[in-house]
Amino acid sequence: MISKSKIKLIASLSQKKFRDETGLFIAEGTKLVTDLAPSFQCFLLIATPPWLSENMDIKADEIIEADIDELKKISNQKSPQGVLAVFRQPTYTYNPLELNHKLSLALDDVQDPGNLGTILRIADWFGITDVFCSEYTADAFSPKTVQATMGALARVKVHTVNLNEFLQSCAGKLPIYGTFMDGENIYSKTLTQHGMIVMGNEGNGISPSIEKLVTEKLLIPNYPAGQVTSESLNVGVATALVCGEFRRRT
Amino acid sequence: MISKSKIKLIASLSQKKFRDETGLFIAEGTKLVTDLAPSFQCFLLIATPPWLSENMDIKADEIIEADIDELKKISNQKSPQGVLAVFRQPTYTYNPLELNHKLSLALDDVQDPGNLGTILRIADWFGITDVFCSEYTADAFSPKTVQATMGALARVKVHTVNLNEFLQSCAGKLPIYGTFMDGENIYSKTLTQHGMIVMGNEGNGISPSIEKLVTEKLLIPNYPAGQVTSESLNVGVATALVCGEFRRRT
Repeated sequence: MISKSKIKLIASLSQKKFRDETGLFIAEGTKLVTDLAPSFQCFLLIATPPWLSENMDIKADEIIEADIDELKKISNQKSPQGVLAVFRQPTYTYNPLELNHKLSLALDDVQDPGNLGTILRIADWFGITDVFCSEYTADAFSPKTVQATMGALARVKVHTVNLNEFLQSCAGKLPIYGTFMDGENIYSKTLTQHGMIVMGNEGNGISPSIEKLVTEKLLIPNYPAGQVTSESLNVGVATALVCGEFRRRT
Repeated sequence: MISKSKIKLIASLSQKKFRDETGLFIAEGTKLVTDLAPSFQCFLLIATPPWLSENMDIKADEIIEADIDELKKISNQKSPQGVLAVFRQPTYTYNPLELNHKLSLALDDVQDPGNLGTILRIADWFGITDVFCSEYTADAFSPKTVQATMGALARVKVHTVNLNEFLQSCAGKLPIYGTFMDGENIYSKTLTQHGMIVMGNEGNGISPSIEKLVTEKLLIPNYPAGQVTSESLNVGVATALVCGEFRRRT
């Protein structure tokens, strides 16, 4: 039986305001919850008795048994899979000196939670451990983003920063890459194995103030060159192509 | 003023059954409608007077003026942009001999309309003109897919086929590529500039019967090799990485 106050808490976590206030976020489904459980403190776990007996080693501050109909009422999913967990958001720090020796991502107002989730999953795949998000980028802990990350949140650290100030602090210490229509062909350009890769907003790309801080402009060429095609790639797709090319070179 | 029968028709086109029966589909928004208009017959165009005066050269069998509140009632979008068009679905044929000289995509039950739209946009970007969809792949003409293609539908031909029979007909004539966990590293493997690239279902990958027809198994390596990461990439992201690598080699 889930108390009214718990139902209210869970519903409130769909809103960023309440996630910020409480420092909590929701994850649903066996794979996601078991992927995240070793990395984040589980504040509350609500699951069906069969789920709990199959996942006896899961740890949580509080565990509530519920039947599937009760889970349906609190779930954001079309077909809840028997478990919903409330985790504490992590607080990460980063060492600026370490950034000089690895590849990281910076997101300039990526707005769609699904795109952000896809990008975090790509970062995870390509061994990028730090993603720096501008203040207007979607919230990494919104239910939609969390579900779209497919567990990548357990391995990729998301930092919310004033992107302008952050990139200014990187200037001169490491190359700052970004994709532009007038950039150099990424497939023929020299790429380093450290640096910051900036990806821009879905509609507007990289903003002018951030563009000034980009030291290496890249172009993902379409094929055949000069053909009329879609004007741009989805930001998740572009992130994959850029990160894939950096990692292919190693 | 939009008649009740038109409102009913437009609502019905959210369902595949009615799209199949009528051979029609819906597109919304200025960019999408003006991108598709030169390629498809516009059966019905509903737009605000300002939109019509800015797009006087658009051709349609029937044009209805409507105010933004009326458009909101029939729109699938959160913020309708002043135009909704009903187009006739194209009927495409393909020449099997031509397939032997180009790169094409085959989709084995890609289920999410958004993923299908992303894949069609990637195909367009990389100059892939034919996409062969299994019968259980999402419908390319569903409103969600059409919007996600961002106009790529005007340039990419989508064929619905019995994928097993279709790939059997390709066997021996052109290489059939697919991505698998036990494939060869795509970055070091010889790739041809013609062939069929099979992409699989979101949850299950390429089905066993289709796997038997794949002649070249590819692996998109994660980084660093052997690291625990997300177990798989989103199918749109994987499509982008594969197509990008084929085109990079040219």
